[in-house]
Amino acid sequence: MTKHQVCMIGSGNMGSAMAKIIGSNVANMPEFDPIVKMYTYPEKLDDGSNIVDSINEFHENKKYLPGVPLPHNVLAVGDVKESCKGCDYIVIVTPHQFLPGLLKQMIGLIPETATAISLIKGVTLKDDSISTVTDTVTEILGIPCGALMGANIANDCAHEQFCESTIAFKDPSLGELWKPIFNTPVFRIKVIDDLVLQQLCGTFKNIYATGVGFLDGLGLGESTKAAFIRIGMEETFKFANWYFPDSGCKMETLLESCGVADFICTSYGGRNRKCAEAFVKTGKSLEELEKEILNGQKLQGVLAAKEVATLLKIRGNFKEYPLLVTIHMIATKQIEPKMILEYDGDHVDQLKVE
Amino acid sequence: MTKHQVCMIGSGNMGSAMAKIIGSNVANMPEFDPIVKMYTYPEKLDDGSNIVDSINEFHENKKYLPGVPLPHNVLAVGDVKESCKGCDYIVIVTPHQFLPGLLKQMIGLIPETATAISLIKGVTLKDDSISTVTDTVTEILGIPCGALMGANIANDCAHEQFCESTIAFKDPSLGELWKPIFNTPVFRIKVIDDLVLQQLCGTFKNIYATGVGFLDGLGLGESTKAAFIRIGMEETFKFANWYFPDSGCKMETLLESCGVADFICTSYGGRNRKCAEAFVKTGKSLEELEKEILNGQKLQGVLAAKEVATLLKIRGNFKEYPLLVTIHMIATKQIEPKMILEYDGDHVDQLKVE
Repeated sequence: MTKHQVCMIGSGNMGSAMAKIIGSNVANMPEFDPIVKMYTYPEKLDDGSNIVDSINEFHENKKYLPGVPLPHNVLAVGDVKESCKGCDYIVIVTPHQFLPGLLKQMIGLIPETATAISLIKGVTLKDDSISTVTDTVTEILGIPCGALMGANIANDCAHEQFCESTIAFKDPSLGELWKPIFNTPVFRIKVIDDLVLQQLCGTFKNIYATGVGFLDGLGLGESTKAAFIRIGMEETFKFANWYFPDSGCKMETLLESCGVADFICTSYGGRNRKCAEAFVKTGKSLEELEKEILNGQKLQGVLAAKEVATLLKIRGNFKEYPLLVTIHMIATKQIEPKMILEYDGDHVDQLKVE
Repeated sequence: MTKHQVCMIGSGNMGSAMAKIIGSNVANMPEFDPIVKMYTYPEKLDDGSNIVDSINEFHENKKYLPGVPLPHNVLAVGDVKESCKGCDYIVIVTPHQFLPGLLKQMIGLIPETATAISLIKGVTLKDDSISTVTDTVTEILGIPCGALMGANIANDCAHEQFCESTIAFKDPSLGELWKPIFNTPVFRIKVIDDLVLQQLCGTFKNIYATGVGFLDGLGLGESTKAAFIRIGMEETFKFANWYFPDSGCKMETLLESCGVADFICTSYGGRNRKCAEAFVKTGKSLEELEKEILNGQKLQGVLAAKEVATLLKIRGNFKEYPLLVTIHMIATKQIEPKMILEYDGDHVDQLKVE
């Protein structure tokens, strides 16, 4: 019998953290080929070496996860076609913008029996419509795709701090097949079937964490922050049931790691919060702060707020999501940060989107 | 027609913060007598004056909420019988231990049409049984009693920071009558009918916040803290459905202010967390830390964990609540704080209760 084989598409901070877990787990699973191929974009490191060679020589991703040893059975591969060929467990953990291009190169190279799992937090928002990352994968590759999301900051996972995460598949029996590849005593996986709300939580939590950052910038306390995290969860659930009425979004999902725990974790620990706090305290634009604090990386919460607000404006129901709209209006300097405290006031009527 | 009249039984930190809100609201409600009588235990202040006289002269509770002006229509009354006589809206916000004694003095003095609302966070645990505070009030006074709970730290409310709170009555139409007495643009009330889970959340959040304090003491990150807050909410819901199977506990309640928001607020901001962190960092006993940090006040989370663990041990199902049991075992030095990371390990079998 042919052994199963895992490949990973992507090797950034989260990809490398997961490579550590997956490599270690798969090495102990006799039904799997122990080699985990990890597609790694072949960029040059500061010392002039190629990151692919560096990972394979030193078993460490010196650029994206320095100081954390990777298992020796994790093999960096610089060519995406080479990395996925013949693999039936496909882990997708590439930056969102590279996804369609990479998937198209993979067509025809993976077995028909393959399944995929996305670790890309969020959904694809385009004009007046939303699609999930997992739908994109299934459309292009023609295989079932689930997602893994939860309160799991990559560095916490890499350093084996206790984390939980949630795997969702429309068919949860596929999720159960994936579970042992990720599950460890300190990275505990639960499988659910609510793939849509799970992925929406992954996008919307960044929006509301931006709002919590504004509250921190205003010097407000724990009661207020807790209230806004709660309201954010409520708006997320409302949106999920409105936009995806037939997908079976469940309230239970909000109580999984991908729900409440990820909202908390991101609202207290993430970079959206940090930049939003600095935005209020310094008066600088978020674009400036992205350059200063994030070295040019884009703030996911600000982007997502803009895209969702645009969609809601086109559909004419933006007043149903006053906190989301208010956060977007603050981020784009349409209103003052302190207006977040009157988030359901008349200012919402004045929403402008580009 | 006789006007309604509100009295408050209790004038501590939370009582005084609520007196500010209630006094201000009632003054604008023509169907209410504008005077809000507040039972205040007639203790001596440091300057030798009586706190009752001091509140009425300076319109400030100099001991428990210094610096916050109280409305002039809030009248401190040093005698509990005098305070409640003829009042049909009874707000109960006294420390738990004084509750039965005070209630017994009130018998026969309040109209049959009166209703009460408890702001006492928590439930009464005795040996192998639990009763809610609102049941105690109804038993002694023979009137319907609801509760107000949520992520509302008294000082945040007193300083008009944005907060939310949840009113629960078995008959929610009574809750709607109470709502305008508390509701303001920055203290937003929602009414529900799940009185049991609402009050259980008020007790159990202190237990799990103690656990989060241990995690802080161990220097762990946001992913881990978020996971344990989530697990705490899950155990609380499980307990509610097991112990009160016929009370209609609802998952929705966990998504109200009394649920997720209060768990977050207490886990990040409260004194249970603070003392538990110091317990791990200093190696001192919690009793010592209560003296040092809380000026002798008792830690509610530690007390509640002990009482619930005892009940679960007697009933034989403590293994169903491994995080709660682990927190109790750590607090009583049966196991090391780091064991919280293996909260569902075999140590749970060794639970000892006094």
